[in-house]
Amino acid sequence: MSKVPTIGVFDSGFGGLTVLRELRKVLPGANYLYFGDTAHLPYGAKSVRTVAKYAIASAHCLEEHGIDMLVIACNTATALAIDDIRAAVKVPVVGVIEPGAQRAAAISKSRKVAVVATDATVSSHAYRNALQALGLQATEKACPLFVPLVEEGWVEHPVTEQVAHIYMDEIFRDGARDADVLVLGCTHYPLIRPLLRRVVPARVEIVDSAESTAAKVVDILGSVPSPTPGTLKCFATDSVEKFKRLGEKFLGTSLESVELVDIEK
Amino acid sequence: MSKVPTIGVFDSGFGGLTVLRELRKVLPGANYLYFGDTAHLPYGAKSVRTVAKYAIASAHCLEEHGIDMLVIACNTATALAIDDIRAAVKVPVVGVIEPGAQRAAAISKSRKVAVVATDATVSSHAYRNALQALGLQATEKACPLFVPLVEEGWVEHPVTEQVAHIYMDEIFRDGARDADVLVLGCTHYPLIRPLLRRVVPARVEIVDSAESTAAKVVDILGSVPSPTPGTLKCFATDSVEKFKRLGEKFLGTSLESVELVDIEK
Repeated sequence: MSKVPTIGVFDSGFGGLTVLRELRKVLPGANYLYFGDTAHLPYGAKSVRTVAKYAIASAHCLEEHGIDMLVIACNTATALAIDDIRAAVKVPVVGVIEPGAQRAAAISKSRKVAVVATDATVSSHAYRNALQALGLQATEKACPLFVPLVEEGWVEHPVTEQVAHIYMDEIFRDGARDADVLVLGCTHYPLIRPLLRRVVPARVEIVDSAESTAAKVVDILGSVPSPTPGTLKCFATDSVEKFKRLGEKFLGTSLESVELVDIEK
Repeated sequence: MSKVPTIGVFDSGFGGLTVLRELRKVLPGANYLYFGDTAHLPYGAKSVRTVAKYAIASAHCLEEHGIDMLVIACNTATALAIDDIRAAVKVPVVGVIEPGAQRAAAISKSRKVAVVATDATVSSHAYRNALQALGLQATEKACPLFVPLVEEGWVEHPVTEQVAHIYMDEIFRDGARDADVLVLGCTHYPLIRPLLRRVVPARVEIVDSAESTAAKVVDILGSVPSPTPGTLKCFATDSVEKFKRLGEKFLGTSLESVELVDIEK
């Protein structure tokens, strides 16, 4: 690819910035447009109809600003609406679920996988279906307290560790006794990966969808020349100040250019 | 009042049902229309502009269905947008903040009050301002984990108790050492009132805004004849099924009539 590509990255909020962070590690020369639909977050508890409506409006906004590829860096939007989004835009669309499932399939020996995610992602059974299509058996568990714990900043906190023990005991006691892979099916969860590593049985490998998705984008685009680092511009549907403040926690670097947009016009 | 009044009750989601529950205790003969803007919940992390926009659209929907009074059963919407809502509708509007502040003023001897609420309610300083106007000193503390813990159903759970200890230690150690009243400034919090009662120092009385708001409505409307129980109809902007399921937890009884509405047209 000779031209420097512009990659659109979409999420309901800030979690997708963990995917952007992985993308910038492997494709530092690409330009990025990030869209956080913060006026409507979180998607985790919303219906298919509502999530699809917001995700498509956000994708159209990114398309109008000129993108060559769209990454749906939101498990809920991927689970509930990726087909609707693909039908609504002209550029190639990559979700976060297939890459995570493929990575799990590549490393699992027991062919049994555990998946943790939000309520909506679990209810959609998108991970179970993707893993079953690859010949794996999946046990899914909703962990609705992880997102607010991460947003409280308690990424290394005894309460988070206790909650993780409760959730992990349930999943590995119930359906996933022989699972040897745990897929992090929510873009907030990479921030508590070190804590989860201590809680999850040692035989279980952790697959981070953000990492797997970035690797998938490289597969599709090939290498991107990077004589200079690419640009990054962000759009948010609610408070720009809050987006900058919280977003920097997820991205790990400062956010300069954030523009407020309205997708309900 | 000879005619049976119809009272509109508005919240971003389900928490306002704790206010409806208190209203039905004291005014069982009134008719109720409840509006839960579930497509946009939670309001707690959104900006003034966004909250005002959704709250006004929801209030207009309730007005079109014929209400005699509007109760804003949502601390965030009251804190951020009650003046905008009052300006936008024709019926009297009661928020949840003033009644809670007035109750605290009536019972506090030390004239020092602690308030727990969401991020947005605390950032608005609406409780501090209302309490200061009544001659009280207020210390406010955001407790962002309480809402997800209640929604997880962990209302009597060791993790919730541990989180409560952390939050309460902070508030009563820092600013509110001499406070003798704790105001529950979020409509989810009444569900963990028994747990908080065990954690909060014995000298501190707990004020529940839902109770105080219901008492305020009685002050304004006077008594309502109740030969037969009034009707209840609910509107939600997202999944009706989910509204019924979660709503019943907050209301304590089953929800029959729930209609899906769209306020973004």
